[in-house]
Amino acid sequence: MKLSKKNLEAKLDQVYDVIIVGGGAGGLSAAIYLQRYRLSCLVIEKGRGRSFWMQDLRNYLGVDSHLPGRDLLKQGQTHALEVGADYLMGFVEEVKDEGETFKVRVKVGKQESVYPEFRSKYVIAASGIIDNLPKLENMQNVFDYAGHNLHVCMICDGLDMEDKKAGLFVNKEGAIGTAFVMNWFTPYISVFTQGLFEVSDAMKAKLADHGYPLYEQPLKEFLGHNHEMSGVVLADGTQVELETGLIAMGSHYFSEYLNGIELERDGQDLITDNMCRTSHPRIFALGDLKKGLNQVSIAVADGTLAATQIWRDIRRASEPRLWVENLKKG
Amino acid sequence: MKLSKKNLEAKLDQVYDVIIVGGGAGGLSAAIYLQRYRLSCLVIEKGRGRSFWMQDLRNYLGVDSHLPGRDLLKQGQTHALEVGADYLMGFVEEVKDEGETFKVRVKVGKQESVYPEFRSKYVIAASGIIDNLPKLENMQNVFDYAGHNLHVCMICDGLDMEDKKAGLFVNKEGAIGTAFVMNWFTPYISVFTQGLFEVSDAMKAKLADHGYPLYEQPLKEFLGHNHEMSGVVLADGTQVELETGLIAMGSHYFSEYLNGIELERDGQDLITDNMCRTSHPRIFALGDLKKGLNQVSIAVADGTLAATQIWRDIRRASEPRLWVENLKKG
Repeated sequence: MKLSKKNLEAKLDQVYDVIIVGGGAGGLSAAIYLQRYRLSCLVIEKGRGRSFWMQDLRNYLGVDSHLPGRDLLKQGQTHALEVGADYLMGFVEEVKDEGETFKVRVKVGKQESVYPEFRSKYVIAASGIIDNLPKLENMQNVFDYAGHNLHVCMICDGLDMEDKKAGLFVNKEGAIGTAFVMNWFTPYISVFTQGLFEVSDAMKAKLADHGYPLYEQPLKEFLGHNHEMSGVVLADGTQVELETGLIAMGSHYFSEYLNGIELERDGQDLITDNMCRTSHPRIFALGDLKKGLNQVSIAVADGTLAATQIWRDIRRASEPRLWVENLKKG
Repeated sequence: MKLSKKNLEAKLDQVYDVIIVGGGAGGLSAAIYLQRYRLSCLVIEKGRGRSFWMQDLRNYLGVDSHLPGRDLLKQGQTHALEVGADYLMGFVEEVKDEGETFKVRVKVGKQESVYPEFRSKYVIAASGIIDNLPKLENMQNVFDYAGHNLHVCMICDGLDMEDKKAGLFVNKEGAIGTAFVMNWFTPYISVFTQGLFEVSDAMKAKLADHGYPLYEQPLKEFLGHNHEMSGVVLADGTQVELETGLIAMGSHYFSEYLNGIELERDGQDLITDNMCRTSHPRIFALGDLKKGLNQVSIAVADGTLAATQIWRDIRRASEPRLWVENLKKG
């Protein structure tokens, strides 16, 4: 059922089998599987995650390639509720390992917030990432184009850049290397450092060898209209014409609530086994939070795997159910 | 485009980047990704695979839980064609490794068959499995219930057996162990060996300890109407009332076309790395053919992984695309 400030009290004494932090594609897939495994779960969604912003899903089997991400999430939420999952809009502030259970503290409501604490045997971290965007004085100017023809995922949207004049927006030298993958889709690449760092001579030479111009000035604004970015203006007034763009400035990982628990990581990615179990035996991680491709299809499969492994754990630790009437007869 | 006897001639001189054997969930997902990576592919589908028979999809995020598998496949086929994949109804008879390319021989048409040979750099084996069913004189009697309330996948449909009288239909002693997992969903389990093998005394004792009756007679027929199985009749005329059932008789693997190529296997499952690459560097395997869960969500993610790895291979072996006009200026 849908929980809110008004009805969550009733759930504070329950120990859920699983609390799922994040109601994106991975978290919802896990919820559907868990409930169908006769396990109880609570999905806690803060809203506005990465898939919420997708304008077109493009490459997820079974849905129209123009389905917006938010429609997929809405469908998944309905599905999860249908099979009996609990669902709460809230921000998970802390997960505390109490030994047998986890205590999960949530902030609910932006105004007159309440801070309920829920309990579960397992936690699935499915709270994802959000892409860092260029920081302009007027952020609305960025939001107008990001997710439209100013992309954040080459796998998802590389084809939409095919043979177009494309800006590559980076925040460190390592990210410039993206140009030499992106050129599979288009050779008309201009690189923008936004004045954020110095580019080495070796990288400058490599870009020149490929014919990819480098612009090192800060960005003033994106040009365009009706969500179609058509170029940029730099700090010194230079205008560069573009037809599309890719932002490769890293991501923010939504996993601060795990800070009190030591988990193995590779960079920021959580390390998991082939069933999505982290180095903590009762914490699983899905999708963008773990190593691997950041794709809806991967997150959905991760949800399947984590739910299945948790079911196995719980089932194997349970007493077998007997057909009692037959035993009495015997 | 859709290929058929009439128009396939034109494609016989082409070397596809990838030929995908099997147009189920995994193969179609791979096709969508490959085409969006600017790679060419041909999907060859024999028809009537495992997902075609699913009455309700149940647990795949993004589609209604009552969507039949065949509707998912139809949507995926449309999607793959939209992004430029070729699609052919036919039966792949043989894949031959010619070194740089594979030669793929296909039987097209049940009558007046033709046997075209297509070529590709990579092969994706996505042809899946089909569950073995009880062999009755009147197979229509089995087809009437299989996939309705006579299930073949516990992960998919365990919940639909919840606390119901369930038959477990097995063809070897090892499969009886399924009862001790299935009892998570219902303890009212009757085991049917169909007269196919002898049950050990140890297993008989274990079943008796759980209260699960064992029926060792051959099956005569399933009872029921309107696709709702309500019991079985055994060879000696005994009737056993049931409300649902699970068939656990193993599967047939559709991978005979790979017989000429040595590939590492675990039992019948193909062994793959974490990007679905088999022990042959240019053959990938997806979904039910490889080790792991036999679920639509897993096959779809496998398609994503295999397509991405093939893209990486081909991209890394290609010359980088330069912005030539800028080089001339320099």
